[in-house]
Amino acid sequence: MMTDASPPAAQGVLLTDLYQLTMVTAYQELGMDREAVFEFFVRRLPVQRGFLVAAGLQQVVEYLEGLHFADDEIQWLESTGRFSAAALGRLARLRFTGDVDAMAEGTAFFANEPVLRVTAPLPQAQLVESRIVNLLNFQTMVASKAARCRIAAGTRRLVDFGMRRAHGAEAALHAARACYLAGFDATATVAAGRAFGMPLSGTMAHSFVQAHADEATAFRHFARVHPRGLTLLIDTYDTLRAARLVVELHREGMRVEAVRLDSGDVGALARDVRAILDAGGCGDIRIVASGNMDEFEIARLLAGGAPIDVFGVGTQLDVSADAPSLDCVYKLQEYEGQPRRKRSAGKATWPGRKQVLREFDEEGRIRSDLIVPVGVDGAGRPLLVPVMRGGCRVGALPDLERSRDLARRELASIPVTCTRIADPEPLTAGISPQLRQLAERVDRDFP
Amino acid sequence: MMTDASPPAAQGVLLTDLYQLTMVTAYQELGMDREAVFEFFVRRLPVQRGFLVAAGLQQVVEYLEGLHFADDEIQWLESTGRFSAAALGRLARLRFTGDVDAMAEGTAFFANEPVLRVTAPLPQAQLVESRIVNLLNFQTMVASKAARCRIAAGTRRLVDFGMRRAHGAEAALHAARACYLAGFDATATVAAGRAFGMPLSGTMAHSFVQAHADEATAFRHFARVHPRGLTLLIDTYDTLRAARLVVELHREGMRVEAVRLDSGDVGALARDVRAILDAGGCGDIRIVASGNMDEFEIARLLAGGAPIDVFGVGTQLDVSADAPSLDCVYKLQEYEGQPRRKRSAGKATWPGRKQVLREFDEEGRIRSDLIVPVGVDGAGRPLLVPVMRGGCRVGALPDLERSRDLARRELASIPVTCTRIADPEPLTAGISPQLRQLAERVDRDFP
Repeated sequence: MMTDASPPAAQGVLLTDLYQLTMVTAYQELGMDREAVFEFFVRRLPVQRGFLVAAGLQQVVEYLEGLHFADDEIQWLESTGRFSAAALGRLARLRFTGDVDAMAEGTAFFANEPVLRVTAPLPQAQLVESRIVNLLNFQTMVASKAARCRIAAGTRRLVDFGMRRAHGAEAALHAARACYLAGFDATATVAAGRAFGMPLSGTMAHSFVQAHADEATAFRHFARVHPRGLTLLIDTYDTLRAARLVVELHREGMRVEAVRLDSGDVGALARDVRAILDAGGCGDIRIVASGNMDEFEIARLLAGGAPIDVFGVGTQLDVSADAPSLDCVYKLQEYEGQPRRKRSAGKATWPGRKQVLREFDEEGRIRSDLIVPVGVDGAGRPLLVPVMRGGCRVGALPDLERSRDLARRELASIPVTCTRIADPEPLTAGISPQLRQLAERVDRDFP
Repeated sequence: MMTDASPPAAQGVLLTDLYQLTMVTAYQELGMDREAVFEFFVRRLPVQRGFLVAAGLQQVVEYLEGLHFADDEIQWLESTGRFSAAALGRLARLRFTGDVDAMAEGTAFFANEPVLRVTAPLPQAQLVESRIVNLLNFQTMVASKAARCRIAAGTRRLVDFGMRRAHGAEAALHAARACYLAGFDATATVAAGRAFGMPLSGTMAHSFVQAHADEATAFRHFARVHPRGLTLLIDTYDTLRAARLVVELHREGMRVEAVRLDSGDVGALARDVRAILDAGGCGDIRIVASGNMDEFEIARLLAGGAPIDVFGVGTQLDVSADAPSLDCVYKLQEYEGQPRRKRSAGKATWPGRKQVLREFDEEGRIRSDLIVPVGVDGAGRPLLVPVMRGGCRVGALPDLERSRDLARRELASIPVTCTRIADPEPLTAGISPQLRQLAERVDRDFP
């Protein structure tokens, strides 16, 4: 099922903030091209998140591999009058030749833990900041919310319905990918099926019913053309009347796989529809619920015993409505071998290149995470692994199915205080004594 | 400044929900290709919005003009095994040949008002639903929040800094466009400058300061390479110390245009920095504030007298953090000349093709909006105008600058109860008696 096709994303190097170009050209002109280390991390988790799921690394690696200024981009930059001919010449020769270490996609992580580290000549490492944050912020945010939906839904089927209110084309594609990675079963977004080899799923819209003189004709028409996996939308006019119609059509021989509820008191309707279907010999017909679903609503419906088999989760997931951004950053940690640290009020960072060491209890649950300077030995599994060296991949990245398998194992390893739907408590990563000492030393050296 | 270049958006016809393809192929096979009318509208405004600003029409028109299934898309659809050869043949011939009527970009509007109407053979009008909602939802949402920032900021300069946490590439581009349309002055997103001919603006990042041994060297270095419009970021270590350094550098002859504050108590720091600069003979140096800005924070800072000249507004704007989606829909209103209506609980719609008539008071403020069936005469300016006929543009769309001019005039026409930042009260469009009668008739005909 996997394909190599990249999504139709804007991978252009101009998808960046203007200050990256002014800083990069300044570094180049000043000869400041020594090795720099930047790390991407989340400063604080959103209130309703007890863990995050790393996602988007595949797209970051594709972006870095392809990084260059095309002729037309250089010409356009020239037309802005902001850059000298010499500066444009240097930009035209720029490629990414650095190293990347990162958590594998699907890894669960917490605040302040480096998720991705770029080690490269300063101009390169600086230039890529905006797009790296843009890619990792979004997929990680959606994967993390999708993981909570998976936890709330247990073994029930989850389908992404969110394309129409995702923030544009790339968001729709990347949301579909991220939620599949985190445990969804399928998406309705056709282009994501093509781009990522994901399973597709779809039903019918109210307009199909409305375009017909009555529901029975609409259902018969749809069944005639698309008999396979037939899902009928039954809430256009009167849900219970439509459920009884489905029983009739079943008696006539129509093979209905599922009915969908998209409005009203879905929990109560699901029970009534289930009763009508069961009484009518349609015990096999599944119930799909959609309309303003998220992990809270799924948990509430299932706690109330709603007999729902499939949840279509849309807008709330694709925009991560209760946390539509992460407080994530990509910060300079070291330049020319010297650890660096930002001390802005409320935004101070831990200096130097860092690793996360994770320890587990006997049942395989995470016991602790410890953030240490790279090179400091310690117990626990290191979460960041080599991804690129000298601008090239160290090996093949795991494909989406393997990342999805990892995410499933990771979810099982997260402490239940972190995974509960209401008021989760995130784990706090420890800071090793060596890292604290390093921070003190940096503060002395850069008073 | 305007260019014709389209943004690198995914315009592909596969950026849609699977059910659009199953419904369209069903309609085609069933011969249901008579004229259908769909309208896009917002059912309810978000809590913190007293009005919305229409945006995204340009991208919708470009999408409809280019609508077709390319050979590789047909081949991929064939590989899914979901569609017959005959169905794929019909899809391959599909183009958009319909009509579009819409509010001009920049128009202020309210709940239940049709913003865009598509009149086309049913398969075409159905197919385009997902992408039309995707395009209009996002830009309208961002333009509406940007308009509130403009109102809060008065005549102060506003710059979009949101690319890195926008939801992907297209969101970053379209957010930059939408906020410029609604009154922002510039964006930091380079690709948006290229795609839409928008003014660019940029400063420097903390990493630039951190990569140097001290701030003075960092500032001197930056000024040497980019002396024009020099903006120095002064909060990396100690903001007031850095402000005094700026005064020193000014005495040495450095021409500093602005300083930027990005952390801490920005209001208090702005006052202290202003005092240091003024005392040091730097009264011309402007103060830029950024970091978690939105219309509420801008209003709060200015109400407190903070001497801020420029606001950099980022994440909160580009993701419309307090309302990251609109309750917007694209609904079938008529098929084969018969008005249609959805009656799902809480989601009922007004049937038929509709127009909005707007009346103004003597001062040019909106007095009332009335939703009427098309063809019903009434006082007031009709808000929907012809945009496409028979699949082609009726005329050139207004360019971005003209849409921005319209938005500026529109903001001046909105009642102040709608435009206040805290607890705005949206205007409620009236429903004409003829429209109520039509709804009753439809309910009788489709019991």
